[in-house]
Amino acid sequence: MSEYAFGRPIGKIIHGGDYNPEQWLDRPDILEKDIEYMKQAGVNEATLGVFSWAMYEPREGEFHLEWLHEIMDRLYENGIYTILATPSAARPAWLDSKYPEVMRVDDMGIRRRHGLRHNHCMSSEVYREKVGIINRKLAEEVGDHPGLLAWHISNEFGGECFCDLCKAKFQDFLRKRYNGDIEKLNHEWWATFWSARYSDFSEVEPPYANGQIAIMGHKLDWRRFTTWNYADYTRSEIRAIREGSKKKDVPITTNLMKRFYDIDYRVLAKELDVISWDSYPLMHNDWESYEDTMIEGAFDHAIMRGLRKDKPFLLMESCPGSVNWSEYNKLKRPKVHEQFSLQAVACGSDSVQYFQWRQSRGAWEQFHGAVVSHLGTNDTRIFREVAHTGETLKKIAEVEGSTSRSEAAIIFEWENWWAIDYSGGFSGKTKKYDTTCQKYWEALMRRGIDADIISVNDDFDGYKLILAPMLFSVRPETAEKLKAFVEKGGILLGTYMTGYVNENTLCYEGGFPGAGLKELFGVIAEEIDTLYPSDKNAICMTEDKCFSVRDYCEILRVSDAEVLGKYKDDFYSGTPAITCKKNGQGKAYYQAARILPEELVGFLDMLISDAGIKTRELPSGIEWHRRVGADATYDFYLNLSEQDVTLSGLNGIDLVTGETINGNVTIPGRGNLVVKTV
Amino acid sequence: MSEYAFGRPIGKIIHGGDYNPEQWLDRPDILEKDIEYMKQAGVNEATLGVFSWAMYEPREGEFHLEWLHEIMDRLYENGIYTILATPSAARPAWLDSKYPEVMRVDDMGIRRRHGLRHNHCMSSEVYREKVGIINRKLAEEVGDHPGLLAWHISNEFGGECFCDLCKAKFQDFLRKRYNGDIEKLNHEWWATFWSARYSDFSEVEPPYANGQIAIMGHKLDWRRFTTWNYADYTRSEIRAIREGSKKKDVPITTNLMKRFYDIDYRVLAKELDVISWDSYPLMHNDWESYEDTMIEGAFDHAIMRGLRKDKPFLLMESCPGSVNWSEYNKLKRPKVHEQFSLQAVACGSDSVQYFQWRQSRGAWEQFHGAVVSHLGTNDTRIFREVAHTGETLKKIAEVEGSTSRSEAAIIFEWENWWAIDYSGGFSGKTKKYDTTCQKYWEALMRRGIDADIISVNDDFDGYKLILAPMLFSVRPETAEKLKAFVEKGGILLGTYMTGYVNENTLCYEGGFPGAGLKELFGVIAEEIDTLYPSDKNAICMTEDKCFSVRDYCEILRVSDAEVLGKYKDDFYSGTPAITCKKNGQGKAYYQAARILPEELVGFLDMLISDAGIKTRELPSGIEWHRRVGADATYDFYLNLSEQDVTLSGLNGIDLVTGETINGNVTIPGRGNLVVKTV
Amino acid sequence: MSEYAFGRPIGKIIHGGDYNPEQWLDRPDILEKDIEYMKQAGVNEATLGVFSWAMYEPREGEFHLEWLHEIMDRLYENGIYTILATPSAARPAWLDSKYPEVMRVDDMGIRRRHGLRHNHCMSSEVYREKVGIINRKLAEEVGDHPGLLAWHISNEFGGECFCDLCKAKFQDFLRKRYNGDIEKLNHEWWATFWSARYSDFSEVEPPYANGQIAIMGHKLDWRRFTTWNYADYTRSEIRAIREGSKKKDVPITTNLMKRFYDIDYRVLAKELDVISWDSYPLMHNDWESYEDTMIEGAFDHAIMRGLRKDKPFLLMESCPGSVNWSEYNKLKRPKVHEQFSLQAVACGSDSVQYFQWRQSRGAWEQFHGAVVSHLGTNDTRIFREVAHTGETLKKIAEVEGSTSRSEAAIIFEWENWWAIDYSGGFSGKTKKYDTTCQKYWEALMRRGIDADIISVNDDFDGYKLILAPMLFSVRPETAEKLKAFVEKGGILLGTYMTGYVNENTLCYEGGFPGAGLKELFGVIAEEIDTLYPSDKNAICMTEDKCFSVRDYCEILRVSDAEVLGKYKDDFYSGTPAITCKKNGQGKAYYQAARILPEELVGFLDMLISDAGIKTRELPSGIEWHRRVGADATYDFYLNLSEQDVTLSGLNGIDLVTGETINGNVTIPGRGNLVVKTV
Repeated sequence: MSEYAFGRPIGKIIHGGDYNPEQWLDRPDILEKDIEYMKQAGVNEATLGVFSWAMYEPREGEFHLEWLHEIMDRLYENGIYTILATPSAARPAWLDSKYPEVMRVDDMGIRRRHGLRHNHCMSSEVYREKVGIINRKLAEEVGDHPGLLAWHISNEFGGECFCDLCKAKFQDFLRKRYNGDIEKLNHEWWATFWSARYSDFSEVEPPYANGQIAIMGHKLDWRRFTTWNYADYTRSEIRAIREGSKKKDVPITTNLMKRFYDIDYRVLAKELDVISWDSYPLMHNDWESYEDTMIEGAFDHAIMRGLRKDKPFLLMESCPGSVNWSEYNKLKRPKVHEQFSLQAVACGSDSVQYFQWRQSRGAWEQFHGAVVSHLGTNDTRIFREVAHTGETLKKIAEVEGSTSRSEAAIIFEWENWWAIDYSGGFSGKTKKYDTTCQKYWEALMRRGIDADIISVNDDFDGYKLILAPMLFSVRPETAEKLKAFVEKGGILLGTYMTGYVNENTLCYEGGFPGAGLKELFGVIAEEIDTLYPSDKNAICMTEDKCFSVRDYCEILRVSDAEVLGKYKDDFYSGTPAITCKKNGQGKAYYQAARILPEELVGFLDMLISDAGIKTRELPSGIEWHRRVGADATYDFYLNLSEQDVTLSGLNGIDLVTGETINGNVTIPGRGNLVVKTV
Repeated sequence: MSEYAFGRPIGKIIHGGDYNPEQWLDRPDILEKDIEYMKQAGVNEATLGVFSWAMYEPREGEFHLEWLHEIMDRLYENGIYTILATPSAARPAWLDSKYPEVMRVDDMGIRRRHGLRHNHCMSSEVYREKVGIINRKLAEEVGDHPGLLAWHISNEFGGECFCDLCKAKFQDFLRKRYNGDIEKLNHEWWATFWSARYSDFSEVEPPYANGQIAIMGHKLDWRRFTTWNYADYTRSEIRAIREGSKKKDVPITTNLMKRFYDIDYRVLAKELDVISWDSYPLMHNDWESYEDTMIEGAFDHAIMRGLRKDKPFLLMESCPGSVNWSEYNKLKRPKVHEQFSLQAVACGSDSVQYFQWRQSRGAWEQFHGAVVSHLGTNDTRIFREVAHTGETLKKIAEVEGSTSRSEAAIIFEWENWWAIDYSGGFSGKTKKYDTTCQKYWEALMRRGIDADIISVNDDFDGYKLILAPMLFSVRPETAEKLKAFVEKGGILLGTYMTGYVNENTLCYEGGFPGAGLKELFGVIAEEIDTLYPSDKNAICMTEDKCFSVRDYCEILRVSDAEVLGKYKDDFYSGTPAITCKKNGQGKAYYQAARILPEELVGFLDMLISDAGIKTRELPSGIEWHRRVGADATYDFYLNLSEQDVTLSGLNGIDLVTGETINGNVTIPGRGNLVVKTV
Repeated sequence: MSEYAFGRPIGKIIHGGDYNPEQWLDRPDILEKDIEYMKQAGVNEATLGVFSWAMYEPREGEFHLEWLHEIMDRLYENGIYTILATPSAARPAWLDSKYPEVMRVDDMGIRRRHGLRHNHCMSSEVYREKVGIINRKLAEEVGDHPGLLAWHISNEFGGECFCDLCKAKFQDFLRKRYNGDIEKLNHEWWATFWSARYSDFSEVEPPYANGQIAIMGHKLDWRRFTTWNYADYTRSEIRAIREGSKKKDVPITTNLMKRFYDIDYRVLAKELDVISWDSYPLMHNDWESYEDTMIEGAFDHAIMRGLRKDKPFLLMESCPGSVNWSEYNKLKRPKVHEQFSLQAVACGSDSVQYFQWRQSRGAWEQFHGAVVSHLGTNDTRIFREVAHTGETLKKIAEVEGSTSRSEAAIIFEWENWWAIDYSGGFSGKTKKYDTTCQKYWEALMRRGIDADIISVNDDFDGYKLILAPMLFSVRPETAEKLKAFVEKGGILLGTYMTGYVNENTLCYEGGFPGAGLKELFGVIAEEIDTLYPSDKNAICMTEDKCFSVRDYCEILRVSDAEVLGKYKDDFYSGTPAITCKKNGQGKAYYQAARILPEELVGFLDMLISDAGIKTRELPSGIEWHRRVGADATYDFYLNLSEQDVTLSGLNGIDLVTGETINGNVTIPGRGNLVVKTV
């Protein structure tokens, strides 16, 4: 498949976002102003129809799509593409009123009422049928429109339904998963515990909040089912589009969300032609620095990038002002909008898109930031910042289609995340699987290594260093892959809480890490100590070089690994805490306790060096990313600080100014630099 | 209508409260003691029957009202009036058991069970019918009793019901409000957002917690409906009383509550002949000083006073000891009871009433403070304090019927309160509309200005200064009234968050404050910055004179106003923050950021001076109020401190001692002084 | 009845615990290892079948008990007894699926779904019938097995059901309690308040969360009903066992829990032959010291010991590692396991038992500590600690059957606990009845007095000192008993909040403490001040000797008692706070305010001295308990500190080493000493 986000080069970085002209159909003056302002802002795309069902079909079977066609025409005439959403994300009132089964049932078994959005029963055949009808109508109406850039399925999938339809579908899912053998399920769920054995699949229920919530295998399978059901539903939407439209190759996406827990995005990603997501970081908050917020956002981009490594992704939504739903909705300070936008591109996005173009006059998001505010003019600070970004994006348009590559990877796995969280034991306050992975990624970033975020199912070839933090749930195949990676020369890091359970959360017997990993690392974790926040310990490599540890300390038995670091305190003082075992050409490191994030990089230096990965010393405050195209390389330098920062030893072309760089470049506070080298 | 609370002079300040003799009908010795002790305590009123339904009608259709008649007789023979409650506030078990529809349905659609009180479906015709029957019986039995001072409808209205009866009634309410045109509703609710459009009124539901909670217009109309339904219900109770009773002019009240959110009291007040309310401040708590608690209580009185400015109100309930429902139920310290009681009178109450006369032996409020405790004697500290207050009230009886007048007013509006709270955006933690109004009121009090609390629908004539903090939701008519007020010479203050939305929460387009207010103030608020608690800024009038600001900072465009103060810090440092524009004879001030409460008065001095309102310098710790009668003026000085405070320059008569005052008077710690001048 | 836990001497301290071989029936290698390891660990007992219903009866009416019989045989052949649980604590899925009435209904009236455990409707006849069938089968199969040591009914009873069956049964319970007279109920519940009167028992509902929750008598009777229903249910289980088994004298127990609120254990205890309980203290936490955790555990043992003072109890469950359900699941430090185990024996247990023998591979408790971990071997730290404890228990086997005796007692009463908690008033944050009793117990422990925890229904003979903290709810009979105790020479302590209400929570009229106690103590509490946490006061006995007080201060009238201490501060400064009145041969002390726990012992010294109870000076860090057998006395010294501690003046035999002691003995940090004297 092509490396381009839309399957073909567009010749620009997409700049646009959600546009809801149906709120203003009685105001042609405003619709006209919109086009004028879009052009002023360098907007070249509009995402239409995300919540338009009730306008398309105000009463069952009565369709009004002509306004959409007209808007798309007018946009296209003005050089503005359309990404067209299917309208399934919010149901019209008549649908709920007539077919209550389309409304979700909560985890206490109570059916929701009409209202809000994103709360359909994904199993309901009625819902799927009605969505299919409107999707086909849309595809027939505008499916081959020349301005149609992509289809956008529904919106921000999430949540779950506990209705009887979902129960039956879950039972079918389990029947297939366990080959119709209830005893297999009883074994994998270890259901003999607390007499939880089933005599038939028909007795199995979803994990109701007032029902069975003590079986981790049950809960994990429920998440797998939910993921599968979303993917299955997505296929049903796509089918209707493809049936209705003459043009069959318009790419399809749906907008994903930050660190989203409910759905294994890697499974859902298989249904999509291009990955897109919505990013809403809370800038200038009171619990972390601006730099911290930005770097966390970069990690989130890395996750999205990793879902489809072969092509750029899209930043489908972001807020050009402040959001309206956070505890404190603070304004973005000047220059932050452009830096945030360029960061997305630097991390692999081929678009910068907003929710939304124009603020809604009423209802929930009326105070959510937008390009055009209630003031309704183009002479606002925010409009100017957006327009400036539009200019910049035009200047760097050639990065389109280029992608990122890394020699280092961090394993981040949805099923593992769930397995850790569902496990009884440890501490519900400090498991923090996802932020733990983030902290490892950030530590590598401090050495100029923009690591990939990968799945255990991804190809490990091409990586020199793999970090696998807290890989609690491990399949035997995964263990084999990790062994092979090390044998062939890879450097691997395993940590506390590795290999405790199999893919159904059954514990490995005979010593953790299980599935053969104890042989790979040469250690067994006999016990794991869960620390209170006030408890502290350290791992000392030498008397002078110690790393502070918190939260978790495994007590190791070392069979045939080299002991590199030992505990400093407590009753296991002096016992092994960091080990390394050579396997074939590579090495398997084991880190038995949680090192403080700010001290991690000091520990990882050893592994980076072993892996022979080039590091890059960056001045404080500079965030760096690289995109590699067919003919050129693009280095992005974001100055996150408010002071000028001078970079030295640069060569290439400043892509924004077009000037040649040779030596030092000073980037002003919160300024950015894109350097092209051929 | 007369200026007297009960429509005629009574010749005394009412001193009494809730009396529940039905709990002691088998104890004639106790009933006898009650009369004896009431007389000792200077009690001249008893509120009867608040929760007596099950005694009146133990089984459906079986009535026992003779005991009430006897009690009223005996009280009256002993000089004690009755305020008679209708018993609808708590339903007998047989009613719930036989007619479940009378029990409220919660916001998840689950019907409540029998128990507690104040939880009826106000829409239920069965409930209204059964209440009507017992009300008529009461009116027939004692409606023309000479001791009957007033009717007291039900008790402390509040809460809401989500049953199908209420749903249907809500739909009817909306049909009327929107003239049967669902498209009008769709527009005002901006329902195109998230596809929330209705095709028919029959699809609209109450804002169920698990339904539609994202449409602010919907929620606001629900509050309007709830308010209307309470008023409608109140009319149905009054109708039954008037039908049953030969005497048609006995005044009617219901007891209101502190800063009560559910109901727009101004709408409900229209049904009442006299305003009464229940005040239960938590004295001596650990989050504020005694002075703060008292001054907040004075503001609450001012709200009540403002509901009917033509006559005194009643303090219908208060606790002579400590309540039983707070987190820590601390005793009131000596002298506090009398000071609290006199404060009520000072603020415009013609009564001091208690819940309750005698502690209940059992059930929820058995440890709620009462005049007569479980000890059962008159020689307790609390009894003595109550009796002392009874004496004092006798001495100041002539203040009856006098009222308060102010040249300053603060707008406080229920619909605005709801609109602010329902709005997405800003910060759910810091909106604080009601306490913001309170802080302005307190700032004026520090200059001896006891401002009125008014509605935008009130007459603005007679005021020289109007403060309109956070008038977020503004109707065009209101904007016109404010303009006219300024034109005619008034001094007006508007603040951040003014004029953002119309009465249905639709944003004004073209610049905030909308509805013409941007012309009045000469400013447009382009952006509003919501600060975290750790964020600080200031407004400087000169280099040396700055006011600290928190929470909200609007960034202004000034068209034709004078800039008086500018921001000190952040990216909008140096931009306008306080402005003033002359309009006709008056001035419109705009304050763009939230000034710390303790610094407010320093800012307001400018406006007070412009308005030409006389200030009054009071020694620290002294709270002052004035009541004006037909022939005399009464100044109340409460010494909130524990030290002696000397007032100078006083002239008049000490109403309690009868002595003439000429010059200095020393009020002992927590003592009080009432000065009459003719 | 015999003093032996099992009705006959076993010749050993039981060492064992929950064993779930049904999880491993397909792993004969593991079952074999279990026996081998049990013997190595000195395990002589296994608790079987706690959650085995679904294995016994996988489908309704299909029974498989042969595996149990085989396991019991094999255990017995290897010297290991069985305590056999009835399997009613967790229902098989088929039962819930076929008979939904067996699933509990929550306090909102919503029926639970299948899952978890301990959530049956105890009123359901279907559930009782099905439990009866499986119990009889078990009794027939293994009821006369020579290895059967005891029956263990269900598991950790608790919680409540609000279904219609329970409602009807509750109504029946009330009919009996109030002799079918609804007016009696109305009076005792003081139902005239808030019109809560019932016209018939059929109108009374359980205290639904969305129903009646304001009547304390109602709530208290609901707790009484729940307790009665558990006892009634227990009888039904026992009946089935006795019917099915030829051997009728196998003792019966059920496992109780720490400070368990739902059930009055004294009522339930009457159905049991021996008391057993499950102890899971959170060692090494971050809110208290290890010493504090241990001493609290000792108090908990004292409660259990007090349920049946004639014989030892059993520690039915404890965790040999760390639990899996606490906020932070920290490891037990070395030597803690043995000290915790010996503490149980020291306090009167004749067993040390674990949950569980071997960690489950999956489901909720897979990471709960067990003797054999997932590693599966005997060479772990925890296995070694357990095996060491097994050795120690063998050495001290002769303590079997010995019991504790004390001359001091503290009254702790479930009904009083409920009455205090349900009462409105005071502070919901600081009532703390159970920990208040604990703090008195700990204060006595500091003087070497291991007081009994008794009920007001227990025999007071033999006690010289009785402390009755916060005896809020008092029956007249109890007051009479306390008077008689003092008359005969006893020293009694009453405190603030004594005698406020009768057994149905009706207040005593005429002065607290009521029921005649005001004459006994010679005081009346006119008011009670509830303090905020920041409020402080003190009671001074002399100018130099003061005790800090917090939370509650009663203001006393003293009629004829001696005033020993007075308040230092606040408006009641100088008024009486500690009094003493001689009655006959004894004294009644009254303590009007809550003295800080750490200062309590200084106050109690006076009472201890009056009572003539011998104190025992113990070095810091040493916990002491004594068990008295027919022929010898056993003193247990636990060194809770981490340092060596030397005890002097000891005489006897070190029961573990067999060596003679004469003079000084040094106990190492966290070591223990058992001294036998004849």
